[in-house]
Amino acid sequence: MRDELLTAFHRRHASHSFTDCPIAEADLDYVLEAGRLSPSAFGLEPWHFVVCRGPADKSALQAACFGQPQVGEAAAVIVILARASDLAPDQAYTLKLLEREYPGERLAAGLAMYRDFYASVDVTAWSITQCHIAAANMMTAAAVIGLDSCPIGGYLPDAVTAAISADPTRFRPALVLALGYSNEAVPTKQRLDMDTIVTRR
Amino acid sequence: MRDELLTAFHRRHASHSFTDCPIAEADLDYVLEAGRLSPSAFGLEPWHFVVCRGPADKSALQAACFGQPQVGEAAAVIVILARASDLAPDQAYTLKLLEREYPGERLAAGLAMYRDFYASVDVTAWSITQCHIAAANMMTAAAVIGLDSCPIGGYLPDAVTAAISADPTRFRPALVLALGYSNEAVPTKQRLDMDTIVTRR
Repeated sequence: MRDELLTAFHRRHASHSFTDCPIAEADLDYVLEAGRLSPSAFGLEPWHFVVCRGPADKSALQAACFGQPQVGEAAAVIVILARASDLAPDQAYTLKLLEREYPGERLAAGLAMYRDFYASVDVTAWSITQCHIAAANMMTAAAVIGLDSCPIGGYLPDAVTAAISADPTRFRPALVLALGYSNEAVPTKQRLDMDTIVTRR
Repeated sequence: MRDELLTAFHRRHASHSFTDCPIAEADLDYVLEAGRLSPSAFGLEPWHFVVCRGPADKSALQAACFGQPQVGEAAAVIVILARASDLAPDQAYTLKLLEREYPGERLAAGLAMYRDFYASVDVTAWSITQCHIAAANMMTAAAVIGLDSCPIGGYLPDAVTAAISADPTRFRPALVLALGYSNEAVPTKQRLDMDTIVTRR
């Protein structure tokens, strides 16, 4: 699998056009499972995945993404929402997951650590970073099973949450992930050389 | 490879203790290559990977990470730095990559779009989100070849850049990735149910 993973990374590209071929239910579940298994700090899984396949949803999301056509063309669009207000230390969602991460006697210390963390960061911005881990794993999973994707970071956040009827206090869009079968040839990947992006001390 | 990727996601866990077994050079390169091939908006690859293997570096990084022992024990610690000041639209780094992403006549429109984007976001915070995509892919690659990892988000940023002599104006730590062979058994993954984290519209 060593070589196959790199092949999948090379195959993955931002597809800007999709065929009208639908995605099998099992394939969609596979991609979502890759997101579900992703790591997050404090084990907080600060994401929610909204799967849109109907034309009205896709059209509304396309408009929220400045009209980018691949959003409307995609067989499925997964909106990756970052949790926001749920992540306050006194919220049921967070308490439940901290109890899981720090069972029994460890909870008090874990909760104190989380309170310090929460006070020191913009928790929504942090939540969005964690969502990018899940997004990466979903793109990898898609590539492995021959699905194409396009990660979209250019959108009006309020229009995205409105399009999918998400509560904007609880959720903030982290990324819109278009999925389907690409109409394009896989382009040769352009990347900086290893020596440019790596320092070995 | 469909099943093997999920097996790798299950195998990947945050290892809190490592053996003293070193990492083969080819394995380290493989992990870095997974990071290098990662996608980023505008094709800006807004990351730099600093590989630390010497005891002095690891010790300084461990101190910057509030003493977390897995940092000192890891065979290699990759500091994933997010580019910051380099991402201003008039910087040589950014211009070069925008010219690659938007060749020829497309450059003017691409540059205008990037200027709008740059004016509307905290570019360093955005850069950190993109680094989490690279981090996820590096963790996946590590798991695929039997290496263990621990992503560490808890650190003093200025102490991290000081430990690796990085320019804190140009670079901001996004994540510290400890790599090696774990001393721990792979724990059973605890995750919320699919129904809790997914809405299907």
